[in-house]
Amino acid sequence: MTIVTLTTDFGLVDPFVGIMKGVIASRAPRVPVVDVSHGIPPQAILAGAIVLRTATPYFPNGAVHVAVVDPGVGTDRRALCIETTDAYLVGPDNGVLSLAAPRDRIRRIVELTNDRFFLSPRSRTFDGRDVFAPVAAALATGTPIVTLGDERQDLIRIDLPVPVRDGRTIRGEIIYIDGFGNMATNVVARDLPEAIERVEVGGRTIAGLSATYGSAPSDTPLALVNSWEVVEIAVRNGDARRQLGLDVGAPVTVVLA
Amino acid sequence: MTIVTLTTDFGLVDPFVGIMKGVIASRAPRVPVVDVSHGIPPQAILAGAIVLRTATPYFPNGAVHVAVVDPGVGTDRRALCIETTDAYLVGPDNGVLSLAAPRDRIRRIVELTNDRFFLSPRSRTFDGRDVFAPVAAALATGTPIVTLGDERQDLIRIDLPVPVRDGRTIRGEIIYIDGFGNMATNVVARDLPEAIERVEVGGRTIAGLSATYGSAPSDTPLALVNSWEVVEIAVRNGDARRQLGLDVGAPVTVVLA
Amino acid sequence: MTIVTLTTDFGLVDPFVGIMKGVIASRAPRVPVVDVSHGIPPQAILAGAIVLRTATPYFPNGAVHVAVVDPGVGTDRRALCIETTDAYLVGPDNGVLSLAAPRDRIRRIVELTNDRFFLSPRSRTFDGRDVFAPVAAALATGTPIVTLGDERQDLIRIDLPVPVRDGRTIRGEIIYIDGFGNMATNVVARDLPEAIERVEVGGRTIAGLSATYGSAPSDTPLALVNSWEVVEIAVRNGDARRQLGLDVGAPVTVVLA
Repeated sequence: MTIVTLTTDFGLVDPFVGIMKGVIASRAPRVPVVDVSHGIPPQAILAGAIVLRTATPYFPNGAVHVAVVDPGVGTDRRALCIETTDAYLVGPDNGVLSLAAPRDRIRRIVELTNDRFFLSPRSRTFDGRDVFAPVAAALATGTPIVTLGDERQDLIRIDLPVPVRDGRTIRGEIIYIDGFGNMATNVVARDLPEAIERVEVGGRTIAGLSATYGSAPSDTPLALVNSWEVVEIAVRNGDARRQLGLDVGAPVTVVLA
Repeated sequence: MTIVTLTTDFGLVDPFVGIMKGVIASRAPRVPVVDVSHGIPPQAILAGAIVLRTATPYFPNGAVHVAVVDPGVGTDRRALCIETTDAYLVGPDNGVLSLAAPRDRIRRIVELTNDRFFLSPRSRTFDGRDVFAPVAAALATGTPIVTLGDERQDLIRIDLPVPVRDGRTIRGEIIYIDGFGNMATNVVARDLPEAIERVEVGGRTIAGLSATYGSAPSDTPLALVNSWEVVEIAVRNGDARRQLGLDVGAPVTVVLA
Repeated sequence: MTIVTLTTDFGLVDPFVGIMKGVIASRAPRVPVVDVSHGIPPQAILAGAIVLRTATPYFPNGAVHVAVVDPGVGTDRRALCIETTDAYLVGPDNGVLSLAAPRDRIRRIVELTNDRFFLSPRSRTFDGRDVFAPVAAALATGTPIVTLGDERQDLIRIDLPVPVRDGRTIRGEIIYIDGFGNMATNVVARDLPEAIERVEVGGRTIAGLSATYGSAPSDTPLALVNSWEVVEIAVRNGDARRQLGLDVGAPVTVVLA
């Protein structure tokens, strides 16, 4: 038996997530549903895509991952199911699925056109309930992906900004800020030589990399390699976003030794 | 096997919801528990009742729905289980269960007087843990409702305010605001003729209905039929509550074409 | 089959909790995972320890309780599993487990040194994912605790401040504030004679104990015995923390009759 995961910008104040779980429980009883996050900032497709890509590797093979960050709900944006070598990805075709579906791992892309799997009547505003939850339930109970709709060759991709290297200098940017205020950059650790001389961000200069959050003075910005292997700016026992006054997109310069 | 759902104003910061799940896991192992919402504003019985009524239709038949918005906990307010044609509803008798229990769907109302199903000792402040969770576990594991206490003929009802129609004008009000700031009114879409000329709210005039959130300019108020079939005021990529500075109870006028 | 619970300061905005659940689902399919709380204030070890101690008694015997409030992650702080007479406790050795593990209920303390149960590679910043979740999955699927590492004789303890009694006066303090703003003290109700004359807190005097939240006037501070049996300061239909402007550590004086 498989598992369904949910990643949305619905928050947990309203019953939207609970309603999706009700639909899944009605159509796929006994299938476990796990929340990845419902705290994606409203309509933040990039943040949703990063979270989905970061989380999916830790789930069992064959899991059905539903991602609903969907400002275009009710318009003619397509609804997709992507089968990868590891999992099924279900959601709107606006890029939110794309970082978890690198080209070389895609087996099949199906547009969700077969409305016999949808709730009826289908609203114009809540495809999470009417389309994505019931399709996930169908997949989790063994429905073949090809019966869900028509096969497609492409999906809409969003790409992470690529850092620019110039001699000993790498110019990257903040791409995700977590709930602690830790700011992840697009500078991937495994692409780096061993030694970093300094990191420049928000007018501050941070000397070298710290090994852990706990190995810098309190309330001082530090840089480290975070749990998904990118350079991250943090403040020990503090909130780097607030202390530095930065947001997603802010430039970060890494200077190699 | 059945399912238990939880709707409370407990929030997710404290362990109250987790403790209720511990009680249910102890007495009904293997029964899945699904969160509908724990973000009901504190003591907001009407919001809890709307959420419960909105969510319950999407869960499997026979589900046990627990709702705890309970400013009168520890007083002599009654504790109830209501069996409807679709489900069991468990919670305080203060109106929170009433919108999910229309008169023509009620099979039986039982006051929870049989304390052998309660945790002992029973506190004066946490019936969610001491009464409602263990009773839900009992129902979910097959305990007949009639053993839970004494049958009653009535429950406390709260009624949604009824919109007033005067010729081409319908005067309603905001009854629920979701976490995006979208404001749902008490004007039910299926009661309306096809064409709406305009909606007046907070000193603004909105021309006609939009089909989707995405079909209006950004940052502009729009009106649409939401996923539970009422007229809703929203702002594309924005927060209508904040932009219009309104709250639950604010008047909304729908003018028909 | 057993159950795993999670108590962290990770919040629910980011995918950290979901990723831990993915690890557990991968290694212990079908084991239910229940959230106790992810709203522990960042790095607030005392609050985490109080929440864990408050919640664990309501879960089935043999449950595996994981607590991650871990400012020292990546440093040489130890990682522990404690077997008590009731449950397994898994987390960092910084005191967060200690209130749920009174000396007379400990059967065994094991330092998690056997890295064949960890995720590999192990990051320096996310032991919740790399150490505690996979160890919990191992325990929940029957791995003997002694295989997880080396037995130890001690753990780091944090102790609740002890109230001081002087004649008819008990000087205690606020030790936990919940999401409603209710402020729990370290004055345990069962240690008290029956009658309390008054409670002094934040320059206010509260006469006697209320039986329930609902038995005081609205917006007025009251004192009651809360659901974990300590004296608590609350405001009916209000937020005591905000109204009194107090925080954890603020002194509270209970005067006996």
